Order: sequence, then C-alpha cells, then structure tokens
Amino acid sequence: MAQAATEAAQTARATIGDSEFDRDTAVTLREEGVYDAELSAGWTIIHAVNGGYLLALLGRALGEALPHADPFSVSAHYLTASVPGPAVIRTQTVRTGRTLSTGQASLFQYAEDGSEIERIRVLATYGDLDALPDDVRTTALPPAMPDRDHCLGPSDGAPRIPGSSAITDRLDIKLDPATVGWAVGAPSGKGEMRGWFGLADGRDADALSLLLTVDALPPTSFELGLTGWTPTVELTTHIRCRPARARCASPSPPATSRAASWRRTPRSGTAPTASSPSPASWRRPRAPSRRTRTTSPAPVRAQSRAGASSSQWARPMVTSRSRRRVCLTTSRSRSGPASSSADAVITMWST
Amino acid sequence: MAQAATEAAQTARATIGDSEFDRDTAVTLREEGVYDAELSAGWTIIHAVNGGYLLALLGRALGEALPHADPFSVSAHYLTASVPGPAVIRTQTVRTGRTLSTGQASLFQYAEDGSEIERIRVLATYGDLDALPDDVRTTALPPAMPDRDHCLGPSDGAPRIPGSSAITDRLDIKLDPATVGWAVGAPSGKGEMRGWFGLADGRDADALSLLLTVDALPPTSFELGLTGWTPTVELTTHIRCRPARARCASPSPPATSRAASWRRTPRSGTAPTASSPSPASWRRPRAPSRRTRTTSPAPVRAQSRAGASSSQWARPMVTSRSRRRVCLTTSRSRSGPASSSADAVITMWST
Repeated sequence: MAQAATEAAQTARATIGDSEFDRDTAVTLREEGVYDAELSAGWTIIHAVNGGYLLALLGRALGEALPHADPFSVSAHYLTASVPGPAVIRTQTVRTGRTLSTGQASLFQYAEDGSEIERIRVLATYGDLDALPDDVRTTALPPAMPDRDHCLGPSDGAPRIPGSSAITDRLDIKLDPATVGWAVGAPSGKGEMRGWFGLADGRDADALSLLLTVDALPPTSFELGLTGWTPTVELTTHIRCRPARARCASPSPPATSRAASWRRTPRSGTAPTASSPSPASWRRPRAPSRRTRTTSPAPVRAQSRAGASSSQWARPMVTSRSRRRVCLTTSRSRSGPASSSADAVITMWST
Repeated sequence: MAQAATEAAQTARATIGDSEFDRDTAVTLREEGVYDAELSAGWTIIHAVNGGYLLALLGRALGEALPHADPFSVSAHYLTASVPGPAVIRTQTVRTGRTLSTGQASLFQYAEDGSEIERIRVLATYGDLDALPDDVRTTALPPAMPDRDHCLGPSDGAPRIPGSSAITDRLDIKLDPATVGWAVGAPSGKGEMRGWFGLADGRDADALSLLLTVDALPPTSFELGLTGWTPTVELTTHIRCRPARARCASPSPPATSRAASWRRTPRSGTAPTASSPSPASWRRPRAPSRRTRTTSPAPVRAQSRAGASSSQWARPMVTSRSRRRVCLTTSRSRSGPASSSADAVITMWST
C-alpha cells in the first residue's frame, strides 16, 4: 500500500518535458535560427512577463540552435518590458568549437504596425555539463536556512498586489522567515533574500529551469526597506552543474495539492502597507502538513544578496564532487532607487 | 624646493588622455559605428593579448558610439585569442533611452586571406555614473591587506616565463604576500588573489581603465595549486562608481622610477618551479623606498575569488556615500583544469 501511494504521488508530479514550464517555454522553428514563441500570461508579475521566464525561452531556443545543449554562461541585457502574446526569437551562431559554442539571441514582440520591438538580447556560451571535470574546489556551503515547512509562501497570507501575481501560481517558493520582514513592514536592512525554490507542478529542476530560478525571488531591495519597481538591466548566469534530482524526504504535501494551495483564493487578512508592495504577503507559516511522503521534487536553495560582500573566506578550499551542488552563480544590475539595490549576487544549491 | 620637487613628480605622471593606456586603446572612426584599432604588443601575456586590454578597447569604442559615455554593465564572451596588430571594432546601437543605452560590439582581426576573424563580442549598457543616486547601501569593506610597500611585484624577483610578459611593464601591481604562495610552490589553497593595482606610468584610474583592471591579476587557480592556461570564457563587469582620484600619501617611489623598476632586467634568483608558470616571480619584498612624496596615483584594491562564497554577512547594511568606493563587481567563467577555477568574483575598491 505504502509503495502504491508513493507511485501515485510520483505519477502526479509533472516531469521534465511535460510540465507548465516546458509547455510555456516551447519554441517552434520558423526557419533556420528563428523560433516562434507565445509568452504566457501565467508568468506575469505586476504588469510584465517575468525576466527569468524570458531567459528560459531564449535559453531553450539557443539550446536548439547551437551544437551544444547546456547553457554555461548566459549574459542578458533587458531592453523593454515584455507582455503576454506572440514573440519571435532570432538566434545567431557566433562560434562553434569542440567543447564550447557561443550564440546570440534576441526576443522580439510586435508593435501595432507589425514592426518588431526587441525585448531582451543575450550572448551565451553553451557546452556539455556532463563533460565538466569532477575536480571542483570551493569553500561554498549551502546557507543555513529553516526547512521548507518552516519557511513562508504566498499561501501563508492574502495576495494583494496591483496587477498580476500569476507567476506565484507556477512557483513553489518558500522564503526564509529571516528575509521576509519587508512583507510586514519590518525589513531586516540586510539586503538578503533566501528561500527554497521549486516548480508548483513538481517538475524537477534542470539547467534550463535554473534560468527561471535566477529571477524568481523578490528583489533584495525589499529587505533594505526600498520599494518600487527595480527592473533588471543586466543579468549574467554561470551554470556550474546540473541540479541534483535526488528526492528529498522532508514532509511536504503531495505535489498536486501543493500546487492547488498556490491558487489565489479570497482570504481575509491584513493588507500590506504602502511600503511593502509585495507580490503576495508572506506571513507566519501555517502548521506544517501532517502528511508525509517519501518523495518530492528536490528544491533548490536560492540566495541573492545586494551589494558586494567583503567577508573573508575562513574555510579552506575543499575538493569534493558533492560541492558540485553549487549549481550556479550570477551577477546582476538593476536600476532602482538606491544604487546598491542595483547589485545582486545569486548563488544556488541543490539539495 | 619641496614644492618644486612635488610639482616635478606630478608632471612626470601620465594623465588621463595622455598615457600608454590611452594611446594603446585609441580607436579611429572608419565609418559610422566602425572603428579601426591597433592591438599593441605591449599588452601581451604568454602568447595572447590581455583580455582586459581588449575590453577597454571595446569599451572606448562603445563610449564613442553610444549617447552615454560610461560603462555600467559589460558582458564579454571571448571567442578566439587576439594577437598584436590591426583590428576593427564593429558596434551596433541596440537601444537608447534617457538614462541608459545598450550597445553591442565585436572586435575582429584579419586572416591571411583578409577575411575577418571575431575575437571577442560584448553586450553593454552605458549611462552616466555622475547621475547615479548618492544613496548607496552595502556591507562591503575593503579587504584587509598590507600597504603597498609590503606587497610584492614582479620586480621583486626574476621574470621567467615562456613567451611574453610585456604587460607587466605597463602595470603597477603589488600582490598581498598572502596570495603569492603559488610563486614559490606553496599555494595557499584558498583560491584568492588580492593586490594593489595601478598603471605603471602613473595614470589615474577611471571607468575605462577599470575594464583593464578586471583581467589584470593572476588567475585565482594558481593559489589552488592548479597550473596551466585558463582562458576566460565570459566576463561580466558592473561598474558602480568612478574610482576615487584622491592622491594617497603612502611612501612610494616617483612614478617614473617606479615604471622603470618594472622593466625586465636580468637578475639571479631561483627559477620558478614547473608548477608555477608565473608571468613573473613574486618574491620577498625589497626594502621599501626611503623616498617619500606627497602625491602618487590612487591605486585600486582588487580582489578575486574562485568558487562561490557562502560566508554570512555579519555587518548591517549601511548608507554612506563613501561606500561608493566599491567601484565594481564582476562575475566570470574560465575554462580550466578544475571547474571551480572557472569561477571568480572580482571586487574593487579605490582608496
């Protein structure tokens, strides 16, 4: 019986290739190097399509256009805000080599007169993540963070935002309570955002979905007490390894009900203050679900930080294959009310 | 007399616009958006032209082509190794706005049959550094580091490298002794490289010369005990403010003699081991010069780190105009013998 229940839970989860994320980032070859796409309204926040979703679309097109399939380094410059609807991705192969290929891609949408408007342009180098050497040296350890059931998601409060919060239905983000002071008018002042990341339908992470993850957390400027729209100017992502696909054993509701719990339902609650334009309110956690299961998608620990760290690395470098779990690093510029909010270094670990 | 001597020293220093760096990164308009350049042999290391010098050349061309003059975010993908000689830079204006402009530029050299070979391609967003808000919040502090006279430069040992070390004559780098163990066969294992950076002819740093600085330190992989060529795949630079131009009062030889001290002179000494392919040996410092002067170029503290840091930020964020002295952050991928050597986060402070 227990085994049957486990298998049923596994069946309910979306899989890589058959998930919301995969359907909504599908691209259709129009002609060599040119791909049609449809920007889904399901990935919007406030008034724009999420930048990580766009990055994944471009990443998928480049993975098809280039001889190598895996994004290694993706440098994106955001030009104009994207809206749901048709788009075209034009790619160019810049250089191909034995181990690396470099390409360029731009996503365009259409003006009323039919002319193309460029939304985002990327330069990217692709390779084969499986071919990277096992010798990895790093001092990095995953951030100390409560387990998922003690972290906070949008379903822990009442969504109140001006405009769309559709993307919260697609994601399974649980923020470290230490980084959600902004939602209750008490930002920590530390400029950090930390949480567990997964896709709401249970799809495992892969290199492509990491490109979505890099733009999924609320801006670190919220925890500095700074509000307002902080559009991304540039975002570079370096993917270091495939995220782990091992199942974690922590108690969590089955994927299907967890996805459902992210649907917006009217709920009484304290409206966010004017100083916390939260895409959804992050409140005290509800009691953890008592249901336990032996499998769930392996979430990714994501951490972004404003400004530049100067803290010393006390730990010696170690060589360990397990350290490959540091699956990406990024750097980023935003335009915003304080120039430090323009900085973020994002690091992700898979469990 | 003292005042006359000071003025003479000041006169001897190269100035922004009239220095080795400015002459060697000059570009000549061929037609709209297209610039001719001559890659100088003076900026080579081993067998290739330095990647930071190339970045500065592209940065200068884009600063001329775009309506905004200052590089904010520059994402570079390195395609093939450059060699001294003629080159052409082709720029494209991608988008212009009130506060930001985005452009693209590629540097090409010529094959024997006259066809163009692309060396490096960049996407870059430019703006006006003086127009950034004063409200800066960061936890970053400059790294603890000995003063310049207790740091080590190439003139502290005998240069022994296969190929060119010409670039060491252009630069005034003094490495923290804690990060030069690699030069004597005792790498620290920490994957850090830290030092004072200046130009040998005394030219002050500006936003453009920072693009050179980001590729000026030896690879962090040396301090991991890893040897071999580790070409840069991608390098993104976010410039946050103009470096300070205040003069520092620390004792240092006049610029002219300091520049001279970087010339290669035969010297007896221990040859580097096979495991330390140093562009120059970094040995115990000679006694600091007894000459003191009241002015010298303001050097930049540069620090690069392999891997991804997970150390916590203990300090609260502070708001301070002086914190603007964190003048840039970068992220980088290299291809190399260990995939962690592929990572580096570079941060720079001006004094």
